[in-house]
Amino acid sequence: MSAPTSTPLPLPKGFQTAALAAGIKPSGKTDLSTVVSETDCVWAFAGTRSTTAAACVTRNREVYAAGGPVRALVVNAGNANAATGKRGARDNADIADALGSVLNVEMDSVLTASTGIIGHPLPMDRVLSGVEHLPEDLGTDAAAFAGAIMTTDLRPKTASADLPGGARIVGVAKGSGMIHPDMATMFAFVFTDAAVDGPGLRAAFSAVVARTFNAVTVDGDTSTNDMAMVLANGQAGEVALTDFLPALETVMRDLARQIARDGEGATRLLTVRVSGALTEAEALTAARTCCVSPLLKSAVHGNDPNWGRVIMAVGRSGASVNIEGMTVAVQGNPVFAGKPLPYDDAAVSASMKAEEVIFEIDLGVGGASGEAWGCDLSAEYVSINADYTT
Amino acid sequence: MSAPTSTPLPLPKGFQTAALAAGIKPSGKTDLSTVVSETDCVWAFAGTRSTTAAACVTRNREVYAAGGPVRALVVNAGNANAATGKRGARDNADIADALGSVLNVEMDSVLTASTGIIGHPLPMDRVLSGVEHLPEDLGTDAAAFAGAIMTTDLRPKTASADLPGGARIVGVAKGSGMIHPDMATMFAFVFTDAAVDGPGLRAAFSAVVARTFNAVTVDGDTSTNDMAMVLANGQAGEVALTDFLPALETVMRDLARQIARDGEGATRLLTVRVSGALTEAEALTAARTCCVSPLLKSAVHGNDPNWGRVIMAVGRSGASVNIEGMTVAVQGNPVFAGKPLPYDDAAVSASMKAEEVIFEIDLGVGGASGEAWGCDLSAEYVSINADYTT
Repeated sequence: MSAPTSTPLPLPKGFQTAALAAGIKPSGKTDLSTVVSETDCVWAFAGTRSTTAAACVTRNREVYAAGGPVRALVVNAGNANAATGKRGARDNADIADALGSVLNVEMDSVLTASTGIIGHPLPMDRVLSGVEHLPEDLGTDAAAFAGAIMTTDLRPKTASADLPGGARIVGVAKGSGMIHPDMATMFAFVFTDAAVDGPGLRAAFSAVVARTFNAVTVDGDTSTNDMAMVLANGQAGEVALTDFLPALETVMRDLARQIARDGEGATRLLTVRVSGALTEAEALTAARTCCVSPLLKSAVHGNDPNWGRVIMAVGRSGASVNIEGMTVAVQGNPVFAGKPLPYDDAAVSASMKAEEVIFEIDLGVGGASGEAWGCDLSAEYVSINADYTT
Repeated sequence: MSAPTSTPLPLPKGFQTAALAAGIKPSGKTDLSTVVSETDCVWAFAGTRSTTAAACVTRNREVYAAGGPVRALVVNAGNANAATGKRGARDNADIADALGSVLNVEMDSVLTASTGIIGHPLPMDRVLSGVEHLPEDLGTDAAAFAGAIMTTDLRPKTASADLPGGARIVGVAKGSGMIHPDMATMFAFVFTDAAVDGPGLRAAFSAVVARTFNAVTVDGDTSTNDMAMVLANGQAGEVALTDFLPALETVMRDLARQIARDGEGATRLLTVRVSGALTEAEALTAARTCCVSPLLKSAVHGNDPNWGRVIMAVGRSGASVNIEGMTVAVQGNPVFAGKPLPYDDAAVSASMKAEEVIFEIDLGVGGASGEAWGCDLSAEYVSINADYTT
């Protein structure tokens, strides 16, 4: 594979990957890739809430609802196949069908993911020809797959965890924003050879997504193609969900933070930890509203410990708060506790010149907590997105 | 008054205004102002939905719920009196009480509005001394009042309308965003000498706010102090609500557009008109989500007719949409109608180099419509908000 790669990272047992340049991207770069499991996988899925969701999200959701196992995933870059109507839905199904035929598995055990420009039909002759040749050169390097699905990402994104008994979890993600301008999308694909309880995994997955990928924001713009999934082929033996889920969350959290840090124009990672909330949902909403606030993001860019903007963003989020019991700390420095606290502005500002800027907020009304990640807002973000032409 | 003013604009009959420098702003600029009616006003009010709403919003809401008439409004700049707890609530009530005493009217007929830094107590000695002297030099120029309530606004914002029978509506607003960084706030104060039906006005006001001020966004950041109100003293005789409400909406819409155009770092006004929606609320949500999208705002800044970002933003808004029946036009040029339309990219881009950039979107699912206003996102926005220090 010619795409940029990081240190090799083997996929879990029984998973293989391949990629090639099918000619979807005018640049001739790698734009079609797959991950295939030798055996059936139980799985869990979350797709974008957008009402203009792409064909791949809609179909994966249908396959998920049907409840059967899956065997393979095919990903194309360069074209989101979104806002392409009935033709787009047919094209998407044809891709799954084609890979299913080559692999000799059911069409409904093949998942799809598309990323790239919105509103244009796929060049199906080139795509189908690519799919046919895709399984010819299978390898086991997850980092190569991570490189193959990159669009404008600056860094490939992988994470892994070892489980008791020798099973492993390997995750791969892409996206330098909740969306890329016309180059939609955040993807997160997690593979494991653990044998886990399928219905239990499905039941738990949305809560893990809420605490990881749904807690990331670069610009508040939700893409048409976002999706996160975990595929478990069971080849390394049984792992209890009580062991599996925390490891899965660690991997997904790691990927989520990598996406935030690689946000368009970002110069640092913004982490907001909220405690003392009435519910976890309110904690996450408050944390995420802080991370998406252009005013707070600008303050982070300018190394300004501007806690007034934290109070504004928390208020805007709708989370329950008792201002007289509320506290705010920036990089460990308390700056507000029901009222402004004295602090050394120059020292706190200097402490914000770091890879990661952490705000800790207690809402003073309950015992729930949550964390979200974003990045600073730089003039570079505007320049990337103002100068990009369809 | 020393504050910047535009062309003089007389207040409606029976309203007077005054302003002075009380010493709340360290700069010594005008920071305390009032509008007083000779006679009781029926009125309507809308305050921020923020859960960290300032003392002035909370108290005005209580006065509004009590249902009585009002006589005066007192506005201070330089300090938002937000996140100031019980002390802030007492200070705010003391200001209303003080102005009520000087004017010899009920404390509960005096409304308050504060704008400025969050989280710091008001310098009450200076404020109360200012309030005492405030009614000494009353005038009738609404433009002077508009100048007196400005903070970082570049332009004073006024609008007016004449009603059948000689009554008038005069509106004044401030804000160069839904919020100013620590300098919270969008205010809109509308005065009329029309005698209108009070309960009817109250019942209709929130819908008018939804179509005007709630359809404005600069950065999606909702302030702690936002408020809009209309005061009617009846001195120019009866006007039917069927005549009054459309004129009120015209004035409020004019002010709303002025706020969007004066957004921080804005170089042009962004107008998004949505039709074919299932409900007016969905049309407004879709239009406003387009106006707040950093990606679409950046595209407008770069003169890029990037309709893919419109499809993304509509999808993110949650509004019902039928993509195959959806249409998008930029500056009157159709660019999408269920599929991409051919258009002259250079010509459409050139047409976007205008004071106002208009997107027209039909969602293809119903008969409701709505309009929202915003502005482009420029590197200047980041610079204003990254370099501003508390």
